[in-house]
Amino acid sequence: MTKKVLIAGFTGAMGQKAVSLVNGLDNFEIAAGLSPVAENNPQKYGLNSNVKVFNQLDEIPVGVADIWIDFTTPSAVYENVKFALTHGMHPVVGTTGLTDEQEVELQKLAKDNHLGGLIAPNFGVSAVLLMKFAQEAAKYFPDVEIIEMHHADKKDAPSGTALSTAKLISQNRPEHQTAPDEVESLKGVRGGDYQGIKIHSVRLPGYIAHEQVLFGAEGEALTIRQDSFDRQSFMSGVKVALEKVDSLNELVVGLENIL
Amino acid sequence: MTKKVLIAGFTGAMGQKAVSLVNGLDNFEIAAGLSPVAENNPQKYGLNSNVKVFNQLDEIPVGVADIWIDFTTPSAVYENVKFALTHGMHPVVGTTGLTDEQEVELQKLAKDNHLGGLIAPNFGVSAVLLMKFAQEAAKYFPDVEIIEMHHADKKDAPSGTALSTAKLISQNRPEHQTAPDEVESLKGVRGGDYQGIKIHSVRLPGYIAHEQVLFGAEGEALTIRQDSFDRQSFMSGVKVALEKVDSLNELVVGLENIL
Amino acid sequence: MTKKVLIAGFTGAMGQKAVSLVNGLDNFEIAAGLSPVAENNPQKYGLNSNVKVFNQLDEIPVGVADIWIDFTTPSAVYENVKFALTHGMHPVVGTTGLTDEQEVELQKLAKDNHLGGLIAPNFGVSAVLLMKFAQEAAKYFPDVEIIEMHHADKKDAPSGTALSTAKLISQNRPEHQTAPDEVESLKGVRGGDYQGIKIHSVRLPGYIAHEQVLFGAEGEALTIRQDSFDRQSFMSGVKVALEKVDSLNELVVGLENIL
Amino acid sequence: MTKKVLIAGFTGAMGQKAVSLVNGLDNFEIAAGLSPVAENNPQKYGLNSNVKVFNQLDEIPVGVADIWIDFTTPSAVYENVKFALTHGMHPVVGTTGLTDEQEVELQKLAKDNHLGGLIAPNFGVSAVLLMKFAQEAAKYFPDVEIIEMHHADKKDAPSGTALSTAKLISQNRPEHQTAPDEVESLKGVRGGDYQGIKIHSVRLPGYIAHEQVLFGAEGEALTIRQDSFDRQSFMSGVKVALEKVDSLNELVVGLENIL
Repeated sequence: MTKKVLIAGFTGAMGQKAVSLVNGLDNFEIAAGLSPVAENNPQKYGLNSNVKVFNQLDEIPVGVADIWIDFTTPSAVYENVKFALTHGMHPVVGTTGLTDEQEVELQKLAKDNHLGGLIAPNFGVSAVLLMKFAQEAAKYFPDVEIIEMHHADKKDAPSGTALSTAKLISQNRPEHQTAPDEVESLKGVRGGDYQGIKIHSVRLPGYIAHEQVLFGAEGEALTIRQDSFDRQSFMSGVKVALEKVDSLNELVVGLENIL
Repeated sequence: MTKKVLIAGFTGAMGQKAVSLVNGLDNFEIAAGLSPVAENNPQKYGLNSNVKVFNQLDEIPVGVADIWIDFTTPSAVYENVKFALTHGMHPVVGTTGLTDEQEVELQKLAKDNHLGGLIAPNFGVSAVLLMKFAQEAAKYFPDVEIIEMHHADKKDAPSGTALSTAKLISQNRPEHQTAPDEVESLKGVRGGDYQGIKIHSVRLPGYIAHEQVLFGAEGEALTIRQDSFDRQSFMSGVKVALEKVDSLNELVVGLENIL
Repeated sequence: MTKKVLIAGFTGAMGQKAVSLVNGLDNFEIAAGLSPVAENNPQKYGLNSNVKVFNQLDEIPVGVADIWIDFTTPSAVYENVKFALTHGMHPVVGTTGLTDEQEVELQKLAKDNHLGGLIAPNFGVSAVLLMKFAQEAAKYFPDVEIIEMHHADKKDAPSGTALSTAKLISQNRPEHQTAPDEVESLKGVRGGDYQGIKIHSVRLPGYIAHEQVLFGAEGEALTIRQDSFDRQSFMSGVKVALEKVDSLNELVVGLENIL
Repeated sequence: MTKKVLIAGFTGAMGQKAVSLVNGLDNFEIAAGLSPVAENNPQKYGLNSNVKVFNQLDEIPVGVADIWIDFTTPSAVYENVKFALTHGMHPVVGTTGLTDEQEVELQKLAKDNHLGGLIAPNFGVSAVLLMKFAQEAAKYFPDVEIIEMHHADKKDAPSGTALSTAKLISQNRPEHQTAPDEVESLKGVRGGDYQGIKIHSVRLPGYIAHEQVLFGAEGEALTIRQDSFDRQSFMSGVKVALEKVDSLNELVVGLENIL
């Protein structure tokens, strides 16, 4: 049975990638698109001619789709997801900007409407698996450091993913400090410290977004690395979400929780 | 409560590493050692003076230890484990050479005697985690290749671990072939093929034992790598086994099944 | 003193990158562009309004530029370079398709006209340095293997760069075979063989164009790796060529010969 | 023609490795050994029975050897090399501890005696090639960071080799700062800074001694990595020195200067 999908934000960069993704899937079809700026000319945006194009929420009739994919804007996402949940659609949300309070409220709404869904700030499957595996490996290898490498234009260090990885690791290992009496003859060479986990941030032109977690133990090492070459990669996470959203009975936050 | 350990094969290279390991653990103590060639001089082998040294099975009294660590020889291991299971000791076995039939028989014996234990051909935690993570990642990334790198003296390719990894991966992904119509202008460059998973074996002096599993998908990559620099690394696996063997209610084969 | 540059093929993908490059350089300015399809509207193509646009060779007056950058087509490149050399311009050529005979002929023409230049099939500086360093390292490390990794759509293996690297290495090491009596239990795992140098080709989606050269010797290893994420990278090679072309007194083939 | 070699410090760990090395070479033979603690029993130390064993300098007759290999102690090395240079022997010195003044004095002595030789604080060929290549690559890639990884027992950071690499690189690139306005939300994550070159030191058990130099530029990356698994690796550098020392006409400092 084919599931019908509405894509909110279908004219944007990520929305267009979502259009390509769903067009290529066997058991899903795009039934509608929402965008305040779209012309009523679906083929212009890579959609079939019978796809309905809406410019605002109140134009959307009941029953138009089973799943609501959201790649819109921080200011639109909350109202969008609320609309989806109160109109029988499972939300799959890649838009950032929801506050913690809004997330809690939407989760309650999902429960009341018996609709599962997913909110994922990072749809990159390789990044999410890296975090998951690193957290598990930390049970056996308490000595660990993180190296993240990004393009030179990134303005903050460490990356959000590196910090999230350190947090997950620290939940799974005893309080621990590797080489605590190391002397730095050059300040900063041992990196930043998150509860005993050293984090190193490399910034170089050419690089895109990469992270390595290095574990060491007597006589052996384990390294987990992920590379994001292109935001296209987020679509593999969206695909997983589309396949699983039906069987979820709550509004899950974080792709790692459905992998 | 301190657990008492008997180390069979305590005079050998791995046995001596096990002696060091257990001597350094808080809740375990070496109560006895078995070796056909050992002199009755425990301190010569890094043991405390009160550790009992036995040269053969029939000298070992009932109740001498709770756990039996075995790093002996293919010809001795079966009788040793049988002895342990019939004398109230949990076996932790790193010796190779048991046939499938012997393993089944010992598992039955363990069940009859209500004793759990572990038989592990590979006690390297990094190698075992690599296999486990690779198998899991394959669910999301069907495109995968394996590169293993060993010292130039290794006489066979691919390595056992690389082949085991490919087998585990193939259980978890749909029938799949990456780049099926690739043309090799130099025969063999695309590597060996195990059910669509390409395996590449590198042999160079200096290298020890290393394996990489490379996953690729639209716009991203995930790589898991393990390095074995020294057989000392096996001891981290023995430590995990010592801590868990008490709570096992069967004779488990494979370290991955208790991680 | 500012050098004047003519860009042949300025409307194409590489030509447009060349336009951006030269626009950003201090001592060079674009004086003219050649393209059979260009409109006479330089600003449409990122050029200053005073840049001259030509559609064919015979429109180009004498003295219009000092340097001729060529990113055109295999069918046009020979006549283009001949024109440049007979009209006082140093050619910097990234177009492929010249035959060996044509290269020899153009080199003679360059000599007769006392004009240096560069023909480079690969303008990627990282790839060229990798080849250069690998060739040098082979003098000290005769045991070497090559791993190249490309996207799954690449239709041939090994890559041209990997094969070129092997050729350069083989010029600089004694006849040598590492692990000659290795037994393959899975056919092809030891890779392709170029004069004793094993080459392994990995093909995975997500990957772009990457090459590693691995050297091993008793107790140590040296690895040289290059990653091409984007053809934009070729522009760093063009920049080097622009800066050096003036001082060349022949038509050099291969970026490595001017690095 | 076979060259005769004297090994000073032949009973130590490095000296014994040198014994094995020279015993395995075709055109060299060990003629004598010097060690204050050695018994007059050459075979005990892996030497042929006809090798002369000396306990102190004044026992050594003229003409006993062509080449003097020195793996002794900081307190002995200066007198040793002086002795070699005044007795017709080319020194190949791996002992550390010579002051800058002593080096200059010995170089003068070498000149006066028309004898070339080599003093090398690091005989690891992979480390020396890494430094050499990194220095050369910096001409084309000014954006560079260094990551060095060592065992957890190393007490200082960064490693001497990493700092030497940064110094060599800084000689070959314009004053340069990558990502100068990066904000550290966790202090130290951007590493130590040597003239704009970021250095990151990783300390983990299991690791031995490894260094990576990462270059990035628009659309591409170049990485040079070396691994020292074992001090055995120093012998490949000693071998190179033995083969070249004859043709040197001065006392060279640094293996990189003869590669």
